Amino acid sequence: MKVSELGEFGLIDLLAEIAGKPKSESVIIGIGDDAACWHAESDLQLATTDALIQDVHFDLNDIAWRELGWKALAVNLSDIAAMGGIPRYALVSLGLPGKTDVDDVRDLYKGMMQLARGFDVDIIGGNITAAPAVMISLTVLGEAATQGNILTRSAAARGDRIAVTGALGASVAWLAMLKRRLKLSQRAAKALRDAHVKPTPRVAEGPALARCGVKASIDLSDGLLSDLEKLCEASKVGARIFTDRIPVDATVRRSFGDAALSLALAGGEDYELLFTAPAKIIDRAKRELPCPVTAIGEITTGSGVKIIDEKGLDVKMKNRGWDHFGGRAR
Amino acid sequence: MKVSELGEFGLIDLLAEIAGKPKSESVIIGIGDDAACWHAESDLQLATTDALIQDVHFDLNDIAWRELGWKALAVNLSDIAAMGGIPRYALVSLGLPGKTDVDDVRDLYKGMMQLARGFDVDIIGGNITAAPAVMISLTVLGEAATQGNILTRSAAARGDRIAVTGALGASVAWLAMLKRRLKLSQRAAKALRDAHVKPTPRVAEGPALARCGVKASIDLSDGLLSDLEKLCEASKVGARIFTDRIPVDATVRRSFGDAALSLALAGGEDYELLFTAPAKIIDRAKRELPCPVTAIGEITTGSGVKIIDEKGLDVKMKNRGWDHFGGRAR
Repeated sequence: MKVSELGEFGLIDLLAEIAGKPKSESVIIGIGDDAACWHAESDLQLATTDALIQDVHFDLNDIAWRELGWKALAVNLSDIAAMGGIPRYALVSLGLPGKTDVDDVRDLYKGMMQLARGFDVDIIGGNITAAPAVMISLTVLGEAATQGNILTRSAAARGDRIAVTGALGASVAWLAMLKRRLKLSQRAAKALRDAHVKPTPRVAEGPALARCGVKASIDLSDGLLSDLEKLCEASKVGARIFTDRIPVDATVRRSFGDAALSLALAGGEDYELLFTAPAKIIDRAKRELPCPVTAIGEITTGSGVKIIDEKGLDVKMKNRGWDHFGGRAR
Repeated sequence: MKVSELGEFGLIDLLAEIAGKPKSESVIIGIGDDAACWHAESDLQLATTDALIQDVHFDLNDIAWRELGWKALAVNLSDIAAMGGIPRYALVSLGLPGKTDVDDVRDLYKGMMQLARGFDVDIIGGNITAAPAVMISLTVLGEAATQGNILTRSAAARGDRIAVTGALGASVAWLAMLKRRLKLSQRAAKALRDAHVKPTPRVAEGPALARCGVKASIDLSDGLLSDLEKLCEASKVGARIFTDRIPVDATVRRSFGDAALSLALAGGEDYELLFTAPAKIIDRAKRELPCPVTAIGEITTGSGVKIIDEKGLDVKMKNRGWDHFGGRAR
């Protein structure tokens, strides 16, 4: 059945059923009223919004609806994690061509719910409308984990070490593989594809960083260099990172040789956390976070990001990350 | 200049400047970080999301960008008002074709800010991306005005009177005028156009209803009948409304003759509040609200909405409101 046959209200009923009753006892009104309503558990409330648009962020030939639902939520959870917050609720604003299959929308929601349940996030509201292309705009609401301690882009200070969670480059390597029609082993291809279509946001790690005493963080959505530049700009500092310390994803390193490093530096969509703090706090984070943490450089005076190779020389790079209108930016 | 020339980050900087610094002292982090952060002023937090999509909800030949910005925010403020809440913050998720003129986007934001400032709402975050058509998805965050008293669709009770704020039908009459190429006086045409492109949400009236002791409310976005049906369904009750009590907009009544009533009943996009309460509370609302309040019927047992004409006979109507995939619904 097409969504135009089921109609807006039938679709809302269906999706409300998949979303289920909110698990959080703090929710007073969920899906189905003019607005959602919940008891604040923390004095500090957080909100972020991000959208995925067909043929801009995804191609329906390359991603399953279920994966799309997962990813649309993942990118927003990542933003809350970057603030050191705990995600609680999501509002889903959907635009769908009338010819969209209802089963596909069901899968979209199932993918979203799969990730939401894993992190105790309730879908408490949304909106569905006709649109010329598939548009998924999510808002995620969260709360500060520890009273008063949120992580910001503007709190980096000279002398801080710079660190990242996990490994980088796999998500964009999947796109590079498709574009260049590279033949990788089935296993390698699957690893890259999973990184791109089903990223796992660092939901536990964000609040853990806040507990460790980290103050500055950003999530890696546009690419390490681009996002580090944004953090430096917001904090009015510069940065120096070392190519031989970048945690390039192992599959990317094996499959892309010399190109692996630039995929990791400028790739985008890794949804890892980049953070800065004094060396002692970075060491604490290395011990306490449930994922790899790698120190990759340091915050300096001045502005801009310098890339230093293993010989101590400055590296110049042309492409530094994604701009959603022009492709590569800055 | 086109948005594709200015780029995502240049556009974000520009729009952040138009949005300005948050006026609310409760905002800790506004535009420019991974998420917005604010101090909760009330225990009860509210959130709603609604989108306007080009050629589904608006035609750029018929509405100015400034009006579009106003309207995109207005429809969301209306949802918070329907809960009896006070709107505080907005997050703006924009999808724009690369060829969109930067000046148009500036106007869109200016229109949004004009309404936002009037009601002390701060734009504290958002997201911009390329899209095949203009897409404006807003999330508005609000708080309960009076601790514990929010209005819901599910609180209508048998014996309640049904009332609406303001007058109905002008917004859809503007569309009818365009479609049928009617020649109305300049003044009449302007009144209808204003109702459609620049609706003023009942931001003060929503919390006032809560203070009066009203428990059940819905905002009129899809049309009186359609929205009253939704309220009845959520409350598991029926309703009876009387055609001679419907506050049909004066311009619509003058310009559309016999068709005026059905425009008011099934029109949509009035953004008035429909609410139900015992007669005494409706009387209190009539005295205390800063706008006209009209009692139009009563809540009954059973289900569905009956329309009774001036002779006491049931009226049958085919078109009962908007479905965003199929046009007229239910």
